[in-house]
Amino acid sequence: MRAKMQLYSGKEDVCFMEKIRIGIVGYGNIGRGVEQAVARNEDMELRAVFTRRAPESVSVKTEGVEVRRFDDMLSMKDEIDVMVLCGGSATDLPVIGPEVAANFNTIDSFDTHAKIPEYFANVDKAAKEGGNVSIISVGWDPGMFSLNRLYAEAILAQGSTYTFWGKGVSQGHSDAIRRIDGVKNAIQYTVPVEEAVNNVRSGSEPKLTTRDKHLRECYVVAEDGADRAAIEQAIKTMPNYFDEYDTTVTFVTEEELKANHSRMPHGGFVIRSGETGCEGNKHVIEYSLKLDSNPEFTASVLVCYARAAYRLSKAGENGAKSVFDVAPGMLSQKTAEELRAQML
Amino acid sequence: MRAKMQLYSGKEDVCFMEKIRIGIVGYGNIGRGVEQAVARNEDMELRAVFTRRAPESVSVKTEGVEVRRFDDMLSMKDEIDVMVLCGGSATDLPVIGPEVAANFNTIDSFDTHAKIPEYFANVDKAAKEGGNVSIISVGWDPGMFSLNRLYAEAILAQGSTYTFWGKGVSQGHSDAIRRIDGVKNAIQYTVPVEEAVNNVRSGSEPKLTTRDKHLRECYVVAEDGADRAAIEQAIKTMPNYFDEYDTTVTFVTEEELKANHSRMPHGGFVIRSGETGCEGNKHVIEYSLKLDSNPEFTASVLVCYARAAYRLSKAGENGAKSVFDVAPGMLSQKTAEELRAQML
Repeated sequence: MRAKMQLYSGKEDVCFMEKIRIGIVGYGNIGRGVEQAVARNEDMELRAVFTRRAPESVSVKTEGVEVRRFDDMLSMKDEIDVMVLCGGSATDLPVIGPEVAANFNTIDSFDTHAKIPEYFANVDKAAKEGGNVSIISVGWDPGMFSLNRLYAEAILAQGSTYTFWGKGVSQGHSDAIRRIDGVKNAIQYTVPVEEAVNNVRSGSEPKLTTRDKHLRECYVVAEDGADRAAIEQAIKTMPNYFDEYDTTVTFVTEEELKANHSRMPHGGFVIRSGETGCEGNKHVIEYSLKLDSNPEFTASVLVCYARAAYRLSKAGENGAKSVFDVAPGMLSQKTAEELRAQML
Repeated sequence: MRAKMQLYSGKEDVCFMEKIRIGIVGYGNIGRGVEQAVARNEDMELRAVFTRRAPESVSVKTEGVEVRRFDDMLSMKDEIDVMVLCGGSATDLPVIGPEVAANFNTIDSFDTHAKIPEYFANVDKAAKEGGNVSIISVGWDPGMFSLNRLYAEAILAQGSTYTFWGKGVSQGHSDAIRRIDGVKNAIQYTVPVEEAVNNVRSGSEPKLTTRDKHLRECYVVAEDGADRAAIEQAIKTMPNYFDEYDTTVTFVTEEELKANHSRMPHGGFVIRSGETGCEGNKHVIEYSLKLDSNPEFTASVLVCYARAAYRLSKAGENGAKSVFDVAPGMLSQKTAEELRAQML
């Protein structure tokens, strides 16, 4: 199924083209979310899924989509416009990010904040050599939250910015609990402290410690005969992960964990308040997300940036970019004229 | 006072330059707000204010700023990098927008939604002929609200977007009341209906009529001996302005109006909710503003887009743009590297 569509170019001239052909690299929660998001955007089609598993063991929902081995990407070099990289930031993306960028336009959700400059440089080099566009660190944080921090700071030059996350599951913190002796399974929720959020919303620009901003709620399945008090103590005193927070630990059965804590909601707030003028007028800018499914929302952001990568590449650009470098109009299916007439 | 600064170019190379020299065209509430906002951004300086009044009758707060006659702009062609046009959208901007764009980079807050395409075309022609960059319809609506409508719709391809305004003064509605016989003065507040906002925030995507979304609160000073019942009736039944809303009319004295209703707070919400995946997962994206001073906040948005216009012009671009065409990084005083390291 192909259809003609118009391209947003930021200019008056408009050209016609076929659907944007998407490849998914890695078919976990995010990869499956990207598949669903592509299905909801009529200017795109999913062409292939690349996996490290045996292709015949992977069944994708979309009809007619190829499932290929990870090391078989180059065979589809001319059939895919943008690869959406759905691997993890710890070990996967640092390797495959530059590797795939050498041959395809790419989008990823690299989220190890401290390593973004290094990752950007590596992807940039590969993408430039390959003549491709790679937009890194796309999602909601980094991603939409980053954009809102930037816009709000640019507008209110003097002020304070606060980011709150949750209520939602932190995979890293859940994993850290699972590594404790006697723990069979665990889920950890990051919870913003309502009093702190309200305080920030009032425009008072409070000084907040780590403990003031978030609580950590842990639901833990202990192994039979494990020392629960010791587990609770080990969690609450764990450096970096829990020691700077008020943490609650609730022991549950495996069945309870599955029944009540297997969904993936998340969300959060970026709030900036600041002053203008000479009479101390206060302003509060807030961006908030309330998400039923963290991976599906992240995937939806990835997919609209895939549209932008495609357009930037068609316009002759190359190299690594972040969300800060992409004009908002590039994300929309609408033309520049439609956007001005309908959305401005 | 000049200082060296770095230019965000969206690329790795960075160049050095002097402060961005701003001119203000029209010295009303917005113009005074722009003056204050420039003072809060250290990479800029205000060079001149252009006015239709007698220059000697206008006193600006910033030292060393020239006040010149409106028709004397060209004499400063080489001394001003960006003109911020602070006139009204009804009669002023449609004339001066293209006129100034022929000779200077410009920013304006043109907000007659229905006439944006025509205005864009006129400014675009003049700006291209003059080799200048003009960013039109900058502020919070149109402006930041437009951006948030676009981003949210691009992410959640299926869903519903709602814009609520207020609580804040509508100048147009206040003026409409003042034209009624027997009315000496009036202020009208647009007030979002809390129940509707909460309904939208729940993600239920309700169908809402005009009446469901906003109330109109009017504070009216009647002339001595005026027929108050007739005034109230005239307001509540006024086509386009009030007849489709639930409206309250409260008569006050001139002193009460001055004491309680002379500030200019405003704000509002853009909320989009939509579904992803195949299990009907819901998401709610909300952007909200709570502003002590509508004109000062609008001015702060204008000023950071003046920075972008300057950079786009330096990069060789020309013609009219909207906020949809401007990469977010262009708005910040920080370099691309700083933004990636600190804000992504």
